[in-house]
Amino acid sequence: MLYLVRMDVTIPHDLPAERAAEIKAREKAYAQQLQRDGRWRHLWRVVGEYANVSVFDVESNDALHTLLSELPLFPYMRLQVTPLAQHPSALA
Amino acid sequence: MLYLVRMDVTIPHDLPAERAAEIKAREKAYAQQLQRDGRWRHLWRVVGEYANVSVFDVESNDALHTLLSELPLFPYMRLQVTPLAQHPSALA
Amino acid sequence: MLYLVRMDVTIPHDLPAERAAEIKAREKAYAQQLQRDGRWRHLWRVVGEYANVSVFDVESNDALHTLLSELPLFPYMRLQVTPLAQHPSALA
Amino acid sequence: MLYLVRMDVTIPHDLPAERAAEIKAREKAYAQQLQRDGRWRHLWRVVGEYANVSVFDVESNDALHTLLSELPLFPYMRLQVTPLAQHPSALA
Amino acid sequence: MLYLVRMDVTIPHDLPAERAAEIKAREKAYAQQLQRDGRWRHLWRVVGEYANVSVFDVESNDALHTLLSELPLFPYMRLQVTPLAQHPSALA
Amino acid sequence: MLYLVRMDVTIPHDLPAERAAEIKAREKAYAQQLQRDGRWRHLWRVVGEYANVSVFDVESNDALHTLLSELPLFPYMRLQVTPLAQHPSALA
Amino acid sequence: MLYLVRMDVTIPHDLPAERAAEIKAREKAYAQQLQRDGRWRHLWRVVGEYANVSVFDVESNDALHTLLSELPLFPYMRLQVTPLAQHPSALA
Amino acid sequence: MLYLVRMDVTIPHDLPAERAAEIKAREKAYAQQLQRDGRWRHLWRVVGEYANVSVFDVESNDALHTLLSELPLFPYMRLQVTPLAQHPSALA
Amino acid sequence: MLYLVRMDVTIPHDLPAERAAEIKAREKAYAQQLQRDGRWRHLWRVVGEYANVSVFDVESNDALHTLLSELPLFPYMRLQVTPLAQHPSALA
Amino acid sequence: MLYLVRMDVTIPHDLPAERAAEIKAREKAYAQQLQRDGRWRHLWRVVGEYANVSVFDVESNDALHTLLSELPLFPYMRLQVTPLAQHPSALA
Repeated sequence: MLYLVRMDVTIPHDLPAERAAEIKAREKAYAQQLQRDGRWRHLWRVVGEYANVSVFDVESNDALHTLLSELPLFPYMRLQVTPLAQHPSALA
Repeated sequence: MLYLVRMDVTIPHDLPAERAAEIKAREKAYAQQLQRDGRWRHLWRVVGEYANVSVFDVESNDALHTLLSELPLFPYMRLQVTPLAQHPSALA
Repeated sequence: MLYLVRMDVTIPHDLPAERAAEIKAREKAYAQQLQRDGRWRHLWRVVGEYANVSVFDVESNDALHTLLSELPLFPYMRLQVTPLAQHPSALA
Repeated sequence: MLYLVRMDVTIPHDLPAERAAEIKAREKAYAQQLQRDGRWRHLWRVVGEYANVSVFDVESNDALHTLLSELPLFPYMRLQVTPLAQHPSALA
Repeated sequence: MLYLVRMDVTIPHDLPAERAAEIKAREKAYAQQLQRDGRWRHLWRVVGEYANVSVFDVESNDALHTLLSELPLFPYMRLQVTPLAQHPSALA
Repeated sequence: MLYLVRMDVTIPHDLPAERAAEIKAREKAYAQQLQRDGRWRHLWRVVGEYANVSVFDVESNDALHTLLSELPLFPYMRLQVTPLAQHPSALA
Repeated sequence: MLYLVRMDVTIPHDLPAERAAEIKAREKAYAQQLQRDGRWRHLWRVVGEYANVSVFDVESNDALHTLLSELPLFPYMRLQVTPLAQHPSALA
Repeated sequence: MLYLVRMDVTIPHDLPAERAAEIKAREKAYAQQLQRDGRWRHLWRVVGEYANVSVFDVESNDALHTLLSELPLFPYMRLQVTPLAQHPSALA
Repeated sequence: MLYLVRMDVTIPHDLPAERAAEIKAREKAYAQQLQRDGRWRHLWRVVGEYANVSVFDVESNDALHTLLSELPLFPYMRLQVTPLAQHPSALA
Repeated sequence: MLYLVRMDVTIPHDLPAERAAEIKAREKAYAQQLQRDGRWRHLWRVVGEYANVSVFDVESNDALHTLLSELPLFPYMRLQVTPLAQHPSALA
C-alpha cells in the first residue's frame, strides 16, 4: 500500500553541530535500510529546499506511523502524508 | 530529470457528458503512451479526490511544459510542479 | 484500518431540484448500507455547515478510494482524507 | 454532546527531558481516566504527525473547555474544536 | 450555552430579484422571532461586508445546527461556528 | 460604537512563572474595571484555546487602540479587530 | 475617524456591457461627491489590479457601513476594512 | 525601473472560441511590441500552468498600471506586482 | 510616486529594554524627519496591533528600498509594499 | 534551462555579528562568481524586504540544487523555485 510523504527538515541553529551530525548519520543508515527492504520505495530531494518527497510501501497506516516516528530526524521535521491508490490509467 | 506533478481535475458540471467522456478517453490514451515511452514514470490516484500525483522524467523544463500543456484535460486541471533532484541518502 | 474523512458538499444552485433530491436519496441509502456492513464507522454533521466528519474502516487505501468515489454526491463534494493509527494512550 | 478535537503537540526542544517525560506520563494517565469515564470517546493518532484526532462527549461547552485546559500538555498544544451534531443519514 | 457564529452571504447574481427579496424577508422575520425568544442573543453587521457576527444561546450542538440550517439564507451563506465558554475574568 | 476583538495569547515558556502570574493578575483587574465602566461589553473564552472573543463599546478608533495597547498582556497577544455596525434585522 | 479600505472588483463577464457601464458611471459620480464632501479622503489604484486602496473619514462605524453599502459596485466588490488610529510618531 | 509581474490566466470555458482566439492574437501582438520597445524586458512561461513570469522596465507606477490594464487578456488574468530594486551583490 | 506600506513590528522579548528603547527613539526621529521632507506622506496606527499603515512618496523603487532598509526597526519588522497609481475617479 | 528563485533571508538576532558578516561576505563573493560564469542570470532586491528574486540558468535540476545548497546563507533562507519554459510570445 502506497503513501506519498513530504518531509521538511528544520534543525534549530543552536543544536550542537556534533549532535546534528550524529542524528543525520543515523537517519541516513535507517533510510538506506528501509530502501533495501522495499518499504521506502522512492526518495527524492526537493530542489532548493531542505526537504524530500518520498513514497512508502507498507502494509497499514499503523506500520507507516511506526516507521515514520522512528526516523531520527522525526522531532525536527514537518511531515505531510497523502494516501495513494491505483490510478485507472496507470499501466503498472 | 525528474519532476513531481500534482494534478487536480475540475470538470464544469455543465460540460456535456459526451464531450467529457471523449476528453477523458483521449487523456487516458495519451497517459498510457507517455508511460510506455518512459516519460510518465509514476501515476497514482490521490485517495478520495479527483486528483493524481505523478512523476515525469523528461530532458528539460521546456519538454515538461510541452507535454503537460498537451494533456486533453489541461484546461480543466490545476497543476503544481516540483522539480526533484538526487537525494544523498537514496540508493537508486 | 481507520481514516478520518471530512466532506464538504456544494450543490450548484442551478441543478434541478428533482435531480438533487434523487442524488441525495441514493447517497443516504448508500451511506446507511456502508454503516450496516461496518465500513462507515461514524458519521457526524458539522454544526452550521453542509458538511460531515466521518470515520471509515476499510482494508486498504484502494478500498477507501473505491468506496468514496462511488458516493452519489462525490462530484459535488470536496473530501479531505486523514489516515489514522493506534494512539499509545488509547484504551480501545 | 459530541465535539471533534484535533491536537497538535509541539514540545520546545530545550525543555528538559525529565520534565517532558513527567508531563507526558500525567497526560497519559489523565487521557485514560477520561476514556474510562466515557468523556474521551475516541483517541486516534494522525499518521506521521505528533498529533491526535479525538471525539469528546461532554454536557456543555464549559465542561469541554475545563477538561481540555486541564490537559498536562495543554500549554504545548494547538487545539481545534469542531462541534458535532446528529447526521440525518446516521444509523446510530 | 453560547456560540459565536459569523455568516458571510453570497447571493448568485443570476438569482431572480423577487426570489432574493422573498428569501431575505423570510430571513428577517425568522431572525427577529429568534431574537425575541432569546436564542439569537446578538446580531451585528460586519462593517463593509455582506456579513454578520452573531451570538446564539441554545441548549445543545444539535439545537444550534437545526436552528442554523433552517435559516432561509442558509444555502447562500458560509458559516463559521465557535463554541464559547465562561471566561474566568468575566463579571457576568 | 462596537468592535469585535479576538485575542490569542502566547506566553513564552521561558518567561518566569511569577512574572507571568503578576501580568495575568493585572490583566484580570484591568479587564474587570473595563467591564464595570461599560467599555468591555462582553468577554468569552474560546473553547479549547488560550484565547477570548470580546466586544468593546468605545467612542472612537483611537479610544479602542489606547484601551487595547494598555492591556498588560498586550505584548503577548495577537489581536484581530472587526468594526461592527447596526444590523437591519436586529431588534436591539 | 479614519479607516483604510481595500476594494477588489470582480464584474461577472456575462453582465451586459451597458449595465456594467451604467454602474461604473454611477460609482464614479458617487466617489467624486464623497471626495468633495471630505468623507473619501484618499483614493488610489493598486498597480496591475482592478482594485483600489482608500481612506475614509467618517464619524462612526455605522456611517462607514452605510456609505460603503451604497456604492453602486458594492455587490461586485470584496471589501477589507482596517480601522486606523493616531500614530505616536505622526506629525499630523 | 523594474517590476516582477506574475500573470495567471483563466479564460471562462463558455467564452466563444473565436472571441478567445482574437483576444489572444491581440495579446501576442501587444506583448511583442512592448518587448521590442524595451518595456517588457523578460517573458517566461511557468512550467505546467497557463501563467507567465515577466519583468517590466517602465518609468513609474502609473506607466506600469496603464501598460498592464491595456493588455487584451487583462479582464481574464490575476496579476501580482513586485517592485524590484538594485541588489548590492548584483554585477549588472 | 506613491506606495502603500504596512509594517508589522515584532521585538523579541529577550531584547534588552534599553536597547529596544534606543532603537524606537531613533525610529521616531527618522520617521519625523521623513514626514517633514515629504517622503513619508501618511503614518497611521492599525487599531489593536503593533503595526502601521503608511504612504510614501519617493522618486523610484530604489529610493523606497533605501529609505525602508535604513529604518532602525527594519530588522524587527515585516513589510508589505503595494505600488499605487492614479485612480481615474480620484479628484486629486 | 531557466528557473525563477525567490530567497527570503532570516538571520537569527542572536547570531554573533561577526559570524553574520563573515557569512554575508562569502555569500556576496559566491553570488558574483556565479553571475560572472553565467549561471546566476539575474539578481534583484525585493523592495522593502530582506529578500531577492533571481533567475538561474543551469543544465539540470541537480545542478540547481547543488548550486543553491552551497549558498553560505542557505541555512538562513527560505527558497521557492519555479521552473521556467519558453513563452510562445517571447521574442528572445
